[in-house]
Amino acid sequence: MPLDTIRTRLKQRRLDALLVTQPENRRYLSGYTANDSSIAESAGVLLIKAKGEPLLLTDARFALQAEREAPGFAMRLYQRGLLALLKQLLPRLAIRRLAFEPHWMLHSTAEALLKMTGALGIEAVPVSGLAETMRRCKTKTEIERIRAAVLLNEQVFRTVYSILRPGQTERQVADRLEMTMRQMGAEGPAFDTIVGAGPNGALPHAVPSDRPLGQGEPIVIDMGLRLAGYCSDMTRTVVLGEPDDKTKEIIRIVRRAQLAATQVIRAGCTGREADRAARQVISAAGYGKYFGHGLGHGVGLAVHEAPALNRRNRGQLAPGMVVTVEPGIYLPEWGGVRLENMVVVQKAGCELLNQDTTFLDID
Amino acid sequence: MPLDTIRTRLKQRRLDALLVTQPENRRYLSGYTANDSSIAESAGVLLIKAKGEPLLLTDARFALQAEREAPGFAMRLYQRGLLALLKQLLPRLAIRRLAFEPHWMLHSTAEALLKMTGALGIEAVPVSGLAETMRRCKTKTEIERIRAAVLLNEQVFRTVYSILRPGQTERQVADRLEMTMRQMGAEGPAFDTIVGAGPNGALPHAVPSDRPLGQGEPIVIDMGLRLAGYCSDMTRTVVLGEPDDKTKEIIRIVRRAQLAATQVIRAGCTGREADRAARQVISAAGYGKYFGHGLGHGVGLAVHEAPALNRRNRGQLAPGMVVTVEPGIYLPEWGGVRLENMVVVQKAGCELLNQDTTFLDID
Repeated sequence: MPLDTIRTRLKQRRLDALLVTQPENRRYLSGYTANDSSIAESAGVLLIKAKGEPLLLTDARFALQAEREAPGFAMRLYQRGLLALLKQLLPRLAIRRLAFEPHWMLHSTAEALLKMTGALGIEAVPVSGLAETMRRCKTKTEIERIRAAVLLNEQVFRTVYSILRPGQTERQVADRLEMTMRQMGAEGPAFDTIVGAGPNGALPHAVPSDRPLGQGEPIVIDMGLRLAGYCSDMTRTVVLGEPDDKTKEIIRIVRRAQLAATQVIRAGCTGREADRAARQVISAAGYGKYFGHGLGHGVGLAVHEAPALNRRNRGQLAPGMVVTVEPGIYLPEWGGVRLENMVVVQKAGCELLNQDTTFLDID
Repeated sequence: MPLDTIRTRLKQRRLDALLVTQPENRRYLSGYTANDSSIAESAGVLLIKAKGEPLLLTDARFALQAEREAPGFAMRLYQRGLLALLKQLLPRLAIRRLAFEPHWMLHSTAEALLKMTGALGIEAVPVSGLAETMRRCKTKTEIERIRAAVLLNEQVFRTVYSILRPGQTERQVADRLEMTMRQMGAEGPAFDTIVGAGPNGALPHAVPSDRPLGQGEPIVIDMGLRLAGYCSDMTRTVVLGEPDDKTKEIIRIVRRAQLAATQVIRAGCTGREADRAARQVISAAGYGKYFGHGLGHGVGLAVHEAPALNRRNRGQLAPGMVVTVEPGIYLPEWGGVRLENMVVVQKAGCELLNQDTTFLDID
């Protein structure tokens, strides 16, 4: 089905084929799950023609895996690199106008591609978002996979939360979370786990340090994992021992902001409106300038994908989109509080994917 | 010192500044250690002028870390993205010719940069390898860091090797290796750990599967870690129980190939000659067509960097280069054997960084 949509879009734009280099697009369209070591060390690309059998181009290291996971794709192996193979293939396949993904190709590679195709009389056309726009709205199967990733994430969180003690360092806790993810069956973390204790929590993306967790201070834990390719993303702010009144107050404000956003999120609501619902609560409480990032983002095969929930996105949400709702308050010197859940946009509202209610410890 | 070299190279080419986007170049030139989540989510860039104070451009999330780690750089924060900041900065700094790294910039970003600079009458020039060529030869300090990474890697290997048992799966062993790396103080794995047992070892870059390790079969373990930024990369092929004669023979051939290469590697030897020394041993034993990759590659801040030891590299090695020596034999259906050590190129030979001699189990 996704392939048919791509083919239709190619025909509409009179393009003969799309070269898929973006790794999540590759997995989405083919089922091939290999990871790229980096953008400069790719595990392969797709060549999807407007008509006929799609191709998967890779090297011998990945041949068995590609064959097993993407049986609908004809495999072609390159020995001297992708461009040398394309130079042979494109004329043979009568491809005259080739779309490529400029948002996931190195400039030097794109320049070499343009030079090579130019010499062959082939037009290479940068086209962004052809697959990304399709990935925004999830199918039922995708939503169930994301739900499974969210629930496993919560299990991991609770396992580690139950043994959290003052004196453990941020780094130790982050390592423990990532180990537990793997032990409980995740493919691995979806991003570098954040553990920010006390003042360190004032940086929304703090790198875990050797600072020990203290009693009574807010500890921001932002963690996500990958399961069957799909990501989870969750933040909890916990306190060891008794939180003081200020901490309790700030947690309550952030939680109210999260609930306010969750209440407006539905098909037709814009990313900007969702963001505003949360921001108003935090501003009304006097902390508006301490909520320095957007409310949320889409999650799927990538942990950060469209749509964005922030002041700049005037686009409307649609059923099947999966987004995070993660307001926060960050006070320099003092620390931070962020609460993050994931929801599925529906026609008349949204469905909460999370079940964990750790933030309700604070009443 | 590295900064001075960059400045000299800029002046020679009549360039006013270099925009450093490649993460290892950024760390090499500034000391700033943050990791990019992906090329599309950068932790910041350097702007090194031919004259005057260098700049580090990042966003608020990384401000504290950047300030602490790169005190010699003036920090500038962007809120609306890098390009918007550059648009203000470049004219103010009187930069007329700006070099950028086309091998580590997305095509869409480069196109936007070229458009923006063009409108300002600034020339943006793609320049590859300015920092990479400097990174090839390591200083004494760098070599000591790499040595520490190699030795820690060996400790991790031996810890896990001592508890390796038939029935454990490839995936479990790979996970255990990566966990142990972290527990023993590594920043993390330098690449996805490879554990290929029996036939799976016939793929040089096998992805660990749920296949259990068997008795008597060769098991390829290729692992590396990162310590203080620098990488290690080591492969051992082990057997649980008694290897049969064929396995022993192949391990011996690969080991002899490794020794032959180690004996020719010195300053002045080309990458091609080093590769040939190993390849001749394997070919003479009748397995030439089953050694389907190059002999080795440079290792430093990146686990794969210049120089390459393979048939295509006619460039000469120089003192201070650190390279892997990793011949292998891969027999479809049967399995694979690869042995990988790291050496430092010296004037009259090379120094072996590894101490582990697990391959000598087979006599």
